[in-house]
This record gives sequence, C-alpha cells and structure tokens, in this order.
Amino acid sequence: MEEKIGQCCVDIVCEGCLVLLFIDRRRKFVFRVRKGDVQGSDKGILRHDDIIGLPYGSKVRLSTGIEAIIHKPMLVDFLDHFFVRKTQVIYPKDHGLMLVYGGIGPGSRVVEIGVGSGFTTTVLAWIVGSEGKVYAYEVREDLLELAKRNLESAGLLDRVIFKLRDAREGIDETDVDAIVVDMPDPWNTLNHVHRALRGSGSLIVFMPSVNQVVRMVTALTLHGGFSDIRVFEALVREYQALPDALRPYTTGVVHTGYLLFARKVQV
Amino acid sequence: MEEKIGQCCVDIVCEGCLVLLFIDRRRKFVFRVRKGDVQGSDKGILRHDDIIGLPYGSKVRLSTGIEAIIHKPMLVDFLDHFFVRKTQVIYPKDHGLMLVYGGIGPGSRVVEIGVGSGFTTTVLAWIVGSEGKVYAYEVREDLLELAKRNLESAGLLDRVIFKLRDAREGIDETDVDAIVVDMPDPWNTLNHVHRALRGSGSLIVFMPSVNQVVRMVTALTLHGGFSDIRVFEALVREYQALPDALRPYTTGVVHTGYLLFARKVQV
Amino acid sequence: MEEKIGQCCVDIVCEGCLVLLFIDRRRKFVFRVRKGDVQGSDKGILRHDDIIGLPYGSKVRLSTGIEAIIHKPMLVDFLDHFFVRKTQVIYPKDHGLMLVYGGIGPGSRVVEIGVGSGFTTTVLAWIVGSEGKVYAYEVREDLLELAKRNLESAGLLDRVIFKLRDAREGIDETDVDAIVVDMPDPWNTLNHVHRALRGSGSLIVFMPSVNQVVRMVTALTLHGGFSDIRVFEALVREYQALPDALRPYTTGVVHTGYLLFARKVQV
Amino acid sequence: MEEKIGQCCVDIVCEGCLVLLFIDRRRKFVFRVRKGDVQGSDKGILRHDDIIGLPYGSKVRLSTGIEAIIHKPMLVDFLDHFFVRKTQVIYPKDHGLMLVYGGIGPGSRVVEIGVGSGFTTTVLAWIVGSEGKVYAYEVREDLLELAKRNLESAGLLDRVIFKLRDAREGIDETDVDAIVVDMPDPWNTLNHVHRALRGSGSLIVFMPSVNQVVRMVTALTLHGGFSDIRVFEALVREYQALPDALRPYTTGVVHTGYLLFARKVQV
Repeated sequence: MEEKIGQCCVDIVCEGCLVLLFIDRRRKFVFRVRKGDVQGSDKGILRHDDIIGLPYGSKVRLSTGIEAIIHKPMLVDFLDHFFVRKTQVIYPKDHGLMLVYGGIGPGSRVVEIGVGSGFTTTVLAWIVGSEGKVYAYEVREDLLELAKRNLESAGLLDRVIFKLRDAREGIDETDVDAIVVDMPDPWNTLNHVHRALRGSGSLIVFMPSVNQVVRMVTALTLHGGFSDIRVFEALVREYQALPDALRPYTTGVVHTGYLLFARKVQV
Repeated sequence: MEEKIGQCCVDIVCEGCLVLLFIDRRRKFVFRVRKGDVQGSDKGILRHDDIIGLPYGSKVRLSTGIEAIIHKPMLVDFLDHFFVRKTQVIYPKDHGLMLVYGGIGPGSRVVEIGVGSGFTTTVLAWIVGSEGKVYAYEVREDLLELAKRNLESAGLLDRVIFKLRDAREGIDETDVDAIVVDMPDPWNTLNHVHRALRGSGSLIVFMPSVNQVVRMVTALTLHGGFSDIRVFEALVREYQALPDALRPYTTGVVHTGYLLFARKVQV
Repeated sequence: MEEKIGQCCVDIVCEGCLVLLFIDRRRKFVFRVRKGDVQGSDKGILRHDDIIGLPYGSKVRLSTGIEAIIHKPMLVDFLDHFFVRKTQVIYPKDHGLMLVYGGIGPGSRVVEIGVGSGFTTTVLAWIVGSEGKVYAYEVREDLLELAKRNLESAGLLDRVIFKLRDAREGIDETDVDAIVVDMPDPWNTLNHVHRALRGSGSLIVFMPSVNQVVRMVTALTLHGGFSDIRVFEALVREYQALPDALRPYTTGVVHTGYLLFARKVQV
Repeated sequence: MEEKIGQCCVDIVCEGCLVLLFIDRRRKFVFRVRKGDVQGSDKGILRHDDIIGLPYGSKVRLSTGIEAIIHKPMLVDFLDHFFVRKTQVIYPKDHGLMLVYGGIGPGSRVVEIGVGSGFTTTVLAWIVGSEGKVYAYEVREDLLELAKRNLESAGLLDRVIFKLRDAREGIDETDVDAIVVDMPDPWNTLNHVHRALRGSGSLIVFMPSVNQVVRMVTALTLHGGFSDIRVFEALVREYQALPDALRPYTTGVVHTGYLLFARKVQV
C-alpha cells in the first residue's frame, strides 16, 4: 500500500514517494521515486538518486543544467499528471462545488454511481478522510479495475468499497450522507437513491447536457421525495500570471457539465 | 460546546440541534431547537416542540397549514442562514477552488491571515477534520470575538487557534501545509509566510482587484521563494430549477475576487 | 419628426435636441431641450436655457455648483435613459451578436416578430440606416403604440412599418434579409418565416429558457428548410474603472437569453 | 471593384460573387465563383460551373454525392473563411459591444489606430455604410497592404482611407465620431485622440491585459478630457445545437481582451 497523497513523508523525498518535478508551467511530471530510475523531459533528465533525501521544495538541476523544483504533489497534481483516465472526467471546479453544496467532508459516507476511471472517486476518498467511506458503483469491469489501480496509486484504496454493479438495479447501502451520480440516465436510479440516503441526505448529479437537466428536474419534481433542488454551473478561468501581462489565457474549457443538488425528504 | 455542523444527531431532531426549516427557495431558516420556542416566517409559525423527535427530512405544517421540510443543515446552510457576518466574505465557489488547488483537506494544518467574521475559518475548520488545525490571525479584536462566536455556533471551535495578531509582524507557526491570506496588502507578509510554510506548502491569496493581483504576482516573482504561481477566477451561475423553464437566474454575483496559488521553494 | 439619435445637430446643443446630462456613473439623464425647462437631480438642477448653444462635451455647473457634462446621447444612452419600457428587453450584449451573426447592417430589410416596447426595433432601425427597413409585428395594440412613441422619440419612425398582427397567422413580406423573433413559441411561425426570408436569409431567435432552445432546435431540424443552426450565449461584465481598484462590479446581469441563428435553405 | 459583402447579387449565384459552401459545421468554404474552377474538400469536390445561376440557399451535390448548401456569405462568414490574417484579431463578440457602446453605425466617421490585417477595419467599413468613412492608421507597410487586399475582397475599399502613419505622432482628421484604438500603448496617443474627436465623440480601446487597462484608466483620469469611462469584457459561448444534446461546446475562447469606452469632454 502506497502513501496517501500529500499526507505522509511530507518533509523529505523518500524512495517510493510520489514527487512532482516542476520545470515550468507546461512541464510538470508526477512520478514515483525508484533508486536507479531517471525521469526524462525535453528540457533534460533527472536521476531519481539525486533527489532522495532532499527536502520538498528543493531546487534541482536537470542534466542540461536547467533548474527545476521537486515538490510534494497535491491531489490536483496527482490527478492532472499521474492518474490514468479512459473516460471524460469531472473537473476540479466542479468537485469544489460538489463538496460545498453537497455537504461532503471528513467522515462522510458517500455512494458514487458511475465510477469511470475513478477520478471523482479519488477526490471523494481524499476528502472523506480516514473516518469516511466511499461506495463506488460501476457496470464496466475494465473501468472498475482501472479505478482500483488509480486509487491504489493515490494510497486511498482502503477508503473505497468498489462494486461491479448497476445502481439502476439497486443500492446496497442505507443511511448514506450523499450520493454522487455521473451516468447518462440518472433518473433511472432515483428510487434506489432515495432509499439509500439518510433523511436530508444529498443527491448530487453531474450532467453534460441541458436535456438531461430538464429531464432530471422533471423526474425529481414528479417523485416528490426531494426538496431544495438547485442547479449550478461553474466557469473557471486561469490567468497568465505574468507581472506585466496579467490576463486570462486565450482558450480553455468553457463547459464540463451542470451540477444538480437535492435533499431527501421522508415520504 | 455545540454539535459539529452536520456531523452528529443526524437521524432525529433533538433539542439543542441546529435545524434548517425549508419552506421554499427564498425562505430557509437555520435555528437551534429550544423547547418552547417558535420560529416565525411570513408563511406561518413553527413551534420547536412539534419537531423534536422527528427524523430529518420530515414534512411539517406551519401554523397556516403550509407544508415545509425540516432538514439537517449542511455547512453551506449554516453559513448562508445562521452565520453572523460583518465583513465581505469569500464565496463557496471560491472555497471549492481553494481546497482543490491549495491541497487543503483532512489533517491539514492551515494558517489563515485576515479572519474577518470567520466565514472562511469555518470552512477550513470543517474540512481539516478532527486531525487538522487552523491558526487564525486577525488584527481587529471585535472581529476576532465575532469569529469565535461563529465557530462556536458551528461546533468547530476546538479546531481553531485564534490569534489577535498582525501577521505582517510575524507568524508563530512553522511547517504548516497551507496559508490562506485575505488582507488588502498580502505582499507585506510574504517573508513570514515563506518561513511558516513547509517545503512545497501552499500559499493561497484572495484578492478583489486586479491591481492587487498584479502587485502580488510581482512580489512573488521578485521574492524567488515560490513556484507554480497560478491565478484563477470562478464564475458560478445558479439556474432556476423549473422543469418547463430551466434558465440561469437573471441577476447574480459576477465577481468576488481572484485566487492566487503558489508553492514554497527552499531558498 | 425629431432628429435621429446621434445623427444630426452633433456640434451644438439646440432646442428640441436630446442631450445626455452626465453627472456621474449613477446619474445620467437623457432629456429633450426645451427653453424654460429645468432638469432636476439629487445633486442639483440644470436650466435648459444655460446649455443651448454649448458645444457637446461641455462642462456645466448644476445649481449646487457641482460639475457635470453635457453629452450628445448615443443610441445606448437613449435606450437606457429615455426609452419607456413595459416589457423585458433584450440587452445590448445580445444586440451586438444579433447584428454580427445575423448579418444585419446598413440597407438590410428586416422583419421583427414580437416588438414589445420597441427596444430591439430601435436598434434595428438605427443599424439598417436610411436605406433599410424594419417590419415590426406585435399582437398587443398597447405595446405597438408604445413602441411607435419610442421610435418617434428616437427619430427613427420612418424606417419602421408597424403591424398589429400575429405572425403565427402569416408574414406579408417576402425576400427579407433577416427575421428577428422574440416570442414565447417561435416554432409556431416557422413556415411563415421560411416563406418570408430570401434564400440564405437569417433567422434570429431570442429565447430565455433552455426548454425553448431545445424545442426550437428540434423544430428547425424537423422542418429541414434551414442550415447552419448556431446557438450562442453572451455574458458581459462591466468593470469598476478606478485606477487603483480595477475589478468587475460585484453583481450584475448573468442571464438574459440564448440567441439562435439559422439560414434559409431552398426546399 | 468587387461586390460588397452580402449587399448585391443576393438572389442568384453569379460569376465573380463570393459564395459560402456549407457542408457541415466544420466544413465551410468561402470562395469567389470563377467559370471552370473547382472547390475541393475532404468530402468531395464542387465545380463552380454547377452553381452559377442557382438561387442562394440551394442544395447542391458534391462529387461524392454528399449534400451541401450554397449560401450567400455574411460578413462573419467572410471574416472567418476568406479573410487573410497575419495578426491577432478582435472577435465578433467584441465588435458587437464596440458598435453598441461606441455608438458606431451608418454614417459614422471613424478613425482606427492599429489596423493590423484589417479585420476590425472590415467590420467598421461594413457598418458605417455608404455614407460613413473609416480612416485607418497603421505603421507597418506590409500589414497595410494586406489590409487593403482584404478590404478589396470585401468590396469595401472605397469606404476606407488607409494611412501609413504612426498615430502617436498625430491624427489628421478632426471632428470624428469615434476612434478605435488597438495598439500596445494606447495612452501614448491620447492627446491626438482628444484633438481628433468631436465633442462627446467616443474613444474605444481594445486591450488584452489588465495592466494595460489599469494604465489606460489612469492616463484618462489624469488627462481630464474624457468622461463616462467604462470597461467591459465579453464572454460568448457557442452551444452544440443538437436537439437531444444541447450544451456548450467543451472548449473555446475564454479571453480576447477588455474594451474601454470614454467620451470627449471639451477642455
């Protein structure tokens, strides 16, 4: 079992740790330190042996003499530069909203429906902490295996119960704090979702198209077992951080999806 | 000491608990349940005695016969409907980014500079969990007292060390995981911030104007002890969640501030 | 017939002209100059007689001694500060897109369906110039009368043919360059719209909700007589223009509606 | 002299006309019809001879049997698919604001500083109509020549006076209605701009970075000869126009620049 992202070995680079080699904005590499290994880049090579024992945040020299920094990766570095994805993923901007408006935090018990590569699973496992738990449903076995490997890389496997199961046919858990749904037809699991949530528990649905949102809002309204239905969309722009030319980057992601939140009412 | 927001008494409404009375989108009330008390609204009155012992998510009737729901409040309900603010606050949309790009989560040790009413302090205390800690600096005694009362209401006081101190004159802690700065002149505490952070630790600065961002990016560039400087801006729209008229609400918040992130380099 | 907005008497303030009294950002007044009249404000009074004969852009003093400027109003000043509205209006940000993606300019012959107070009618009449023409359909007589008065104030009445008529029952014109539709059920006039447009002519539809857009895109797809269907949404933020505190204003309009464009195909 | 964009030969495809071959969203071609020529594409070939005499909006078959449409190009089609650019250009979303908030329309006399490839020049020449005029300043001869060729292609050359001249050294015109500035240091031509504008005339400045905006707002404030300074930013998203999957496209342009507007005060 590997170390948890950003939560151990935070002082000194050790063998087996994940590190972030930061050369510049477009050249960030997250890798696991192994004696004898090298990390390549178009700006030069770094020998793993040269960084073992260094404090995090240290400057290092690549083989070309170019300076770089060895950082302790954060969750977002791991997700952007180490995580293996085979599916469209939800973005950090959406995860932030998910946690805040869904009330997910340390100690939460969360069901996730539609695991995909395990991207959101990783965020959830990280945020629920050692006292929380994630129950992760996925119908495709290959994706479930990929997700497991990703969670293992993140050192968070022990916080997740993976289930090769179609949530449209049932959810095993009850009294969970929140359910995160990322599937094309979220309305088809609504009865199971309602049963699995505790009273006042949060339903959180991620949907790329407005057609899905319209259909989901309609389904929730007809169902009657949910209140405080809210729909949000997040747009995040990154700025070029140059002292003399501060401005948003020209192109970027302008849409991922809509986030719907609702809370269980006893019926 | 009151119960932690959303983390105990989650089944049944008890005396002393915070509850959310949800009448409709514009009528949400968070209050503490006290025998004999009543909660008023322009749609009718609710007697606290009538809800003690009910499961969360229950439907109730106001004095007028109008139906409402008793929910267990989430952090965001507490912040929006119970928290007492005297200062401009950072928004949930920004907190989400702060956690994700600042790497703040369960177990984090975080310094906060510029506590104000304690809004962000509450979010930080909630997310660092029982194993984390928040060191909260504020120069105004009246605000610090207000922040303490707010944190006490949230049941999170034991996770915060409040300091009536100007961080421009020094930060006591060392090796902290992250420092959140919300003050008009964040560049004036940069040396102390650098000293207090662990290697690779996160600096997170919230700034309303572009002038501040330009000046801060300049200061960081000249200082040399930070890398991976990133600047973000979040725009979140809420949609009217009606099945036949789904659309963003007409007016809303279009700006709170910019978020700058940077990581400590050993110098 | 009054003078056209911004297109005559541009040198000197004359009796009968529309002028813009600019005191500050929140105090702009557009009025028609009449000998003996006064213009009031909470910052002081301006006597019309004192400005007749002044060049535009002149500084003037209110009765209180406070300085203000007399400007020649632009179309947008007229719309914001003189125009009488009884209906929700389309915003300048949307008009800009409408002209560019709808190909409306000097000389265009345009049908407008759903005149309302005549806000968009004014913009269209202004932009098509003296060689263009606007055919303006409205079913409510009171609105049509209001629109006529507004267009008269703008001096643009001679460019508009008003029609008290339901476009769902037919459009009289043929071979028009563009048709702008702002009605709740734009799909119900699609056959008439197709007949009235010239080959390659532009259909431009303004719709507040996503449900309308979905239904309109569906109707256009089924109809088969349109191509190059495009849907846009514009978000415009205004910044506080202070040298030391440049930043977007905190709150603002975050949604007006979606703009759909399509072009006539011969069938 | 070629025909003006979208303003003649609007019924039938003639030799010498610009046409838009619309195959699908990603395959649009604007070209000039020449007997004997062919237009290629990865979906098949179109012989020009086959479309001469067709009404605009007609369906045609490519050599592969695939159906396409022959449209009369609008200005925006010309700019996107025929215009030759060698410089960063301002976007249609910005042009829309420019016209509306700058008060530029049929009959306007406009100075443009910083012509580049002539993109904005084309929009201005189109919108001022046959009674307006554009005075176009550019310091680089190669760009000026390119701009001339582009304007000639658009059939709008007779509305533009090109000047190989540095506007920082003077502007020849006086009493112009508006001046559009797109240069790195707009503050360096402020005195000339003020002199060239008529009273109440519009200054419109396009600037990519916030540093420029801060500096320009500062310069205008110090100069004293301008009022009603406003700064805007436009964000436009295009939606995938599919009946069953309506949603904004995932990636797009999130920043071009800021638009500053101000009006001349007599000093």
